[in-house]
Amino acid sequence: MKIVIDVFGADMPEEIVKGAITSVNLIDEVEIILTGDKDKIEKVIKEVGYTGDKIEIVHAPDVIDCNESPTMAIRRKKESSLVAALDILKTREDVIGMISAGSTGAVLAGGLFVIGRIEGVKRPALAPFLPTVNGNPTLLIDCGANVDCKPEYLRQFAIMGSIYVKAMCGIKNPKVALISNGTEDHKGNEQIHQTFELLSNEKEINFVGNMEAREMFSGDFDVLVSDGFTGNVAMKAAEGTINTFNAVLKSEIKKGGLRAKIGYLLMKKAFKNLKKRINYTEVGGSPFLGIDKILVKSHGSSKAKTIYSCVLQVLNIHKSNYIEKMREGIKNSNLAGE
Amino acid sequence: MKIVIDVFGADMPEEIVKGAITSVNLIDEVEIILTGDKDKIEKVIKEVGYTGDKIEIVHAPDVIDCNESPTMAIRRKKESSLVAALDILKTREDVIGMISAGSTGAVLAGGLFVIGRIEGVKRPALAPFLPTVNGNPTLLIDCGANVDCKPEYLRQFAIMGSIYVKAMCGIKNPKVALISNGTEDHKGNEQIHQTFELLSNEKEINFVGNMEAREMFSGDFDVLVSDGFTGNVAMKAAEGTINTFNAVLKSEIKKGGLRAKIGYLLMKKAFKNLKKRINYTEVGGSPFLGIDKILVKSHGSSKAKTIYSCVLQVLNIHKSNYIEKMREGIKNSNLAGE
Repeated sequence: MKIVIDVFGADMPEEIVKGAITSVNLIDEVEIILTGDKDKIEKVIKEVGYTGDKIEIVHAPDVIDCNESPTMAIRRKKESSLVAALDILKTREDVIGMISAGSTGAVLAGGLFVIGRIEGVKRPALAPFLPTVNGNPTLLIDCGANVDCKPEYLRQFAIMGSIYVKAMCGIKNPKVALISNGTEDHKGNEQIHQTFELLSNEKEINFVGNMEAREMFSGDFDVLVSDGFTGNVAMKAAEGTINTFNAVLKSEIKKGGLRAKIGYLLMKKAFKNLKKRINYTEVGGSPFLGIDKILVKSHGSSKAKTIYSCVLQVLNIHKSNYIEKMREGIKNSNLAGE
Repeated sequence: MKIVIDVFGADMPEEIVKGAITSVNLIDEVEIILTGDKDKIEKVIKEVGYTGDKIEIVHAPDVIDCNESPTMAIRRKKESSLVAALDILKTREDVIGMISAGSTGAVLAGGLFVIGRIEGVKRPALAPFLPTVNGNPTLLIDCGANVDCKPEYLRQFAIMGSIYVKAMCGIKNPKVALISNGTEDHKGNEQIHQTFELLSNEKEINFVGNMEAREMFSGDFDVLVSDGFTGNVAMKAAEGTINTFNAVLKSEIKKGGLRAKIGYLLMKKAFKNLKKRINYTEVGGSPFLGIDKILVKSHGSSKAKTIYSCVLQVLNIHKSNYIEKMREGIKNSNLAGE
């Protein structure tokens, strides 16, 4: 099974290539197509010493970066690694999915422009699984694709999230909650009030009400619904908190002298596991739900192991038969709503 | 100097009373008026064994809780501990400020209804200082008072935050940033775009642009501007992350056996300091900026030491002459805008 990966547009292209090599080395059934500057990609492959035949390179010298207008860049830069990857995803039937660590806006614009939406989908949304305390997967939808949302979009995010979680995790009746500023039914801003109403009346999902962002990692919910602006802020606040925690702990260990340092050494394994359990690079990327192919956005600062996680993720999504299920589910939910 | 404290409406009224006792015991210049059910308050005072004359009790048997409509509750429950405290804040000239750990909505509604706004203020906002990595104070405004905001309100939050930070911390030209989903100028939803425009043209403040919630604890900014819904979600996401971190670390220490446990013991002081540095109970409460008196909202689950921090905070705000400065600053900014 072939997966196409956009090598450029992220912080560390060499890590993307290394992740691809790790993937073909560790996963028998996977072959990878890399798009981007051929010389640069080959240089990394040579450095790593990979000599197999499971990686194909498609030359595409242009790069789309974060500061460009996504739509303009997609239309103009036909020779970019991103557009080349999207073209391959669209046209080659043996390609099961795509990974890009480039600009979220550009990947989304490209997905919409080149691939298109599943019929009936209003807005595709970015939906990562969050690491949780009890290990249960919790999906956040949307975490950044749609910064301005109508309540109707949020209703559909709830439906798409439910279908995806059912397909991927085998959860029969996923608990869907709405991120708000309090758990009570009357909490929230105008958008939340209207969405609460819609979700309460939606028969396709198991809506359990408002929840607070402080519970987002509890594992008590299966799907968390939010507009892309709020979801993004919540994710980044969590990221910032972890960084702060680490920085402050480090300075306290330093201040604590030998005693604290020995303590830290003895706890090293516990810290390592802790990091692993709450680290996004272990979780992989976020699929754009609603796009008519498997399109996974990886973190802009993705490392080789992040890409490897994303490859596994594409494989799992493919095997779950999610695209078919989403087409069917969206059709049914729109029929029910008519 | 007298401070009035609303004892009921929060999770642990006895902790509020204990905090008041700690405060009068430790701070010579402070006297406290407690409002609420007299018998219940006296019982706690007796239990603690306080026999001094620096605490006055004003009997007000009713309680306003989180599930009531704030405006209705304020108008109807004249005998509530909250309304009694607000009346005292309004009418008694020797009272310099008020603390309540009750429902945010009710405290705000009461502040607006009983005390009123500083002239020219459109919407009062809840503005806590955040704990930061480098120890520099960073003010978040708004963290929950206004869930639906116009860009114009956000512009005024920026001005109010700047005036407050100048008064409280002596920072001459506070750096004001807008919480967005990216640092680039074009990032954000429609509300952020319009606010960005307003802040860029605002001469009364030092606007440094958009920032991401992952930097909210960096200490690199003095004032973070946000609508109350987003600010609240960001704060709660941070709170949830700390809880998750602690829970996962605890389970890893347990799994790590004797080695990890000894490590933890050796690091105990470092952890204690860490907790202290990132703990909200040490930071105190959040003032409602824009209300024409010093009105501090403390966390619903406030403990005695939280209340003590709030008392110190009211004292500092009073000494900074902030109300006068805010009246002056708002007048000037509105004149400049005309």
